[in-house]
Parts: sequence; structure tokens; C-alpha cells
Amino acid sequence: MTEEKSKSNEKNSNIIFIGKKPLVNYVKSVLIQFEKKGFNEVIIRSRGKFISKAVDVAEIVKRSLQKEGIKVREIEISSEHFESEGKATNISSMNIILVKNISS
Amino acid sequence: MTEEKSKSNEKNSNIIFIGKKPLVNYVKSVLIQFEKKGFNEVIIRSRGKFISKAVDVAEIVKRSLQKEGIKVREIEISSEHFESEGKATNISSMNIILVKNISS
Repeated sequence: MTEEKSKSNEKNSNIIFIGKKPLVNYVKSVLIQFEKKGFNEVIIRSRGKFISKAVDVAEIVKRSLQKEGIKVREIEISSEHFESEGKATNISSMNIILVKNISS
Repeated sequence: MTEEKSKSNEKNSNIIFIGKKPLVNYVKSVLIQFEKKGFNEVIIRSRGKFISKAVDVAEIVKRSLQKEGIKVREIEISSEHFESEGKATNISSMNIILVKNISS
């Protein structure tokens, strides 16, 4: 999980993984991917309790980049199943796919 | 907000509003709408920190009603803007629209 996380938040990836850092850090990361790195699509990925925070990030980005026509293309939810100390657990996960409206 | 909540969770509505009650209560409410009330579409509505819980409810319902072909038709996110004690605030909100796959 830690490895995936560090990979996802690499500077050249269009996947932003939401975790414990302040909300504004993730908002900035998404803005950078769109504005500085030139991505037309950014995926905000979250699990468990961080899902609410991911929605806040997406909404703030939408408001900040209203002129640029950023919108939600799709939101996917799924469950990840794993075993921890012999106990089966499911955790919900979500991808919010933001796209730049190129036609505008 | 309280009024809307009580309305939404009326027995004859297909909208389930997620709040402070235990997760299982909301799972049961959704199952009842599909199985007893005969709705082909149920909307799981949530705000702020309850958004994560709403995703858990949707995922548990999907697993419970796998045979009946329940799936997510759409997930919408938005912001609600309001003023509280002269201070402007935004809160994220989400609708998860679950449907019964009638063709199956």
C-alpha cells in the first residue's frame, strides 16, 4: 500500500492518492497536474474514511478551475478485499476522474 | 436539514439519507426499498463526513444483492453553499444511484 501510494503521488503521474495530509495539499497537487504538467485527465483515488476528503478535493478543484472547464467524467466505487491477522475485511475505494473540457 | 432527512427516510421514498445511525440500519433500509417496496432505483444521499459511509452502504448492498443484479447507475457529487453565523461555507454532497438490472 505504501509503495502504491508513493508511486501514485509521483510528480509525473496523473493519479493523486488521498491520505492524511491537509486538504489543500491534495488540491494543489491536482491543480499542478492540470496546469503545470499539462494532463487532460487526473484521477483522485481514495479508500475508507478518506473518501469524503477526496470528494472535497474534487469539488474545490472544480470551483478553482471553473474557467478551464474541469468536470467530473466518472466516479467509480469498488471494494478491496484483504486479510489482516486472519480476519477478512473489505474496504471501500473510489476513483474520481476529472477531465479538462478540451472543446471549451 | 432535519426536515429533509425525515422526509427522505420516509418508508415510501426511494431516497435514503445517510447520517449518524449504525451502517447496518442504512443497508437494511436500502434492501427494504428494493426487496419489499419494489423500487427499481434507490438513491443513497450523503453530505460531508457521511460520504464515506454512503459508499460503504452501496458496496454492502451490491454484495448482498449480487444475484438480483443491483448495480451503480451513477454517482453525482456537488457542493451545497450556505451561510452560518455570517460565515460562508461549502459542504460536499453525493448521490449514489443504485438500480436493479431488469434485463437480468
